[in-house]
Amino acid sequence: MPPAGPFAFIEACFRRPAPFTPIWLMRQAGRYMAEYRAMRARFGFLELCKTPEAAAEVTLQPVERLGVDAAILFADILLVLEPLGVGLEFTRGDGPRIGRPVRTAAAARALGPLVVEDALGYVFDTVGRVRKALADRVPLIGFAGAPFTLASYLVEGGPSREFLLTKRFMRAEPQAWEAMMTTLADITADYLNGQISAGAQAVQFFDSWVGALSPDDYRRYVQPYTSRAIGKVRRGVPIIHFGVGTGGLLPLMKAAGGDVIGLDWRVDLGSTWAQLGHDVAVQGNLDPAVLLGSVDEIRQAARQILDGAAGRPGHIFNLGHGIHKETPVEHVAALVDIVHELSSR
Amino acid sequence: MPPAGPFAFIEACFRRPAPFTPIWLMRQAGRYMAEYRAMRARFGFLELCKTPEAAAEVTLQPVERLGVDAAILFADILLVLEPLGVGLEFTRGDGPRIGRPVRTAAAARALGPLVVEDALGYVFDTVGRVRKALADRVPLIGFAGAPFTLASYLVEGGPSREFLLTKRFMRAEPQAWEAMMTTLADITADYLNGQISAGAQAVQFFDSWVGALSPDDYRRYVQPYTSRAIGKVRRGVPIIHFGVGTGGLLPLMKAAGGDVIGLDWRVDLGSTWAQLGHDVAVQGNLDPAVLLGSVDEIRQAARQILDGAAGRPGHIFNLGHGIHKETPVEHVAALVDIVHELSSR
Repeated sequence: MPPAGPFAFIEACFRRPAPFTPIWLMRQAGRYMAEYRAMRARFGFLELCKTPEAAAEVTLQPVERLGVDAAILFADILLVLEPLGVGLEFTRGDGPRIGRPVRTAAAARALGPLVVEDALGYVFDTVGRVRKALADRVPLIGFAGAPFTLASYLVEGGPSREFLLTKRFMRAEPQAWEAMMTTLADITADYLNGQISAGAQAVQFFDSWVGALSPDDYRRYVQPYTSRAIGKVRRGVPIIHFGVGTGGLLPLMKAAGGDVIGLDWRVDLGSTWAQLGHDVAVQGNLDPAVLLGSVDEIRQAARQILDGAAGRPGHIFNLGHGIHKETPVEHVAALVDIVHELSSR
Repeated sequence: MPPAGPFAFIEACFRRPAPFTPIWLMRQAGRYMAEYRAMRARFGFLELCKTPEAAAEVTLQPVERLGVDAAILFADILLVLEPLGVGLEFTRGDGPRIGRPVRTAAAARALGPLVVEDALGYVFDTVGRVRKALADRVPLIGFAGAPFTLASYLVEGGPSREFLLTKRFMRAEPQAWEAMMTTLADITADYLNGQISAGAQAVQFFDSWVGALSPDDYRRYVQPYTSRAIGKVRRGVPIIHFGVGTGGLLPLMKAAGGDVIGLDWRVDLGSTWAQLGHDVAVQGNLDPAVLLGSVDEIRQAARQILDGAAGRPGHIFNLGHGIHKETPVEHVAALVDIVHELSSR
């Protein structure tokens, strides 16, 4: 167990030396854990997010079980869309659905604003409970969906592979797109600042699906709004900026903002960090599929990533995306131990 | 209509100057064309592939309708799997299915070999018919799936998003993986050489799904076999090496081989070509979603890609992946004209 403050995770976010490479894992609270499945047997997904006592318990489960160096709030990036009145539902099997997708300029302009304290107070309540229960053993990460990823759900009406409607909308209705993205940027910043006020000690921007875009589209249709949101987040709290399949976008994502850039496994961590510049921290980037293999394979793959980082201050170990539900929990625990062991300085 | 030989497309593959930037489009023969849909009303997909007269007609449709600078054989990367006896089917809606997926070391070792002249003679027949009908107006591109992409279908049993079974297999059974990938590399090379003997004037390796892998996994589990296959293709015929989401893999793909590296829209063409080195040609890289927008938007996006290539010999214009079925055929024709007009030297 690391000592209470200064936390290795926070030190790494600011590229300060830490006694070991801190590790946390995207979707560390999730279906691969029996404790989580037991909670989900009692609560629907949205109900679980909206019950602060239960959401706090789920947030804490991986901290107890795995010994990770940060907790991450149990919530969903789409919670912020529910009070916008678009008819958010989480279906069994098919994932999230937006009952009234945003497909016209008028609908895009009519979105929000939102008073996050009224609409999302239950999230802030969860944050407060978790901070109290953690008692400064490890820091708590808050998070939000970045404007593009939120907009893609609003326009598509659910998950998508090609994002054709979203791409069509942003090009065909650039002014309505600007209005919607500005609204989403401001809501996102307010939401993260609310989490910070309630006790979150770092925040992650999930721009999960932005990797569907070309660099030019990113520059034109996404970067100004992500930059606006990041610029409004309270100073002094580290910001992680993450997306999947972003190999061609990383310099633009760095320019948009964030103290830490999240990398997926499709890029080599060492050479990508060198190209991005060592004036930013990086988080990543084990392929979550590796956790389905043997502990020897996990050790080998973890070592390679740590070798790529070369002990340079500013590396937070993580997966390149969330833990697969088929993952044995013992393998996840083994990874945490392996990273601590191999990186102890 | 470009003059008969030297073809602009072949010149560009070998990085020789051409009077304009040649263009062809992945899935240029497909559901977005009324002529194609009319053929599919008469033939099932596999039946169409296996009827040389009909497959040749479908191959020629976009050449007549669009004025592209190359024809590409109408076929499917999975045809080569059918004679391996794994139970290939094309279902309506769900895409290809492998009835007997390869999930054990024994099954992987038992694959092939294949005498392509016996098993895939109908493809070579189509190639011969197309060459004759083209009468050297434009060259004909043959193609095959690269070993990893073929193996991923064999192991998963159909399309996949995460490729968890394939990743598990290659790590857990490295020797059986080596045997299977070697077999697939040799079949692929024989198959492409058969197409070349029948008249194909260039070939494309589709390693469509290799972007799911980390650079280290690519180096270990893919590169040796792609390199083996490419090395066995008859000299003098240009080879295009393509995959989707490969931003972090491109230098390794270049090292594996090919005269032309296919780029998807997620990378910036100009800076990526500079990083790869100008000793290789590049193909790409318009987001196919752009074709759903207005002709003005198409012109602007095409111009930007041509500006990135800066008139340097060795750029073949294409999409970053196949044409979406919702695309208006007039937009595709407009793109071809725009690229010819903007690039005429």
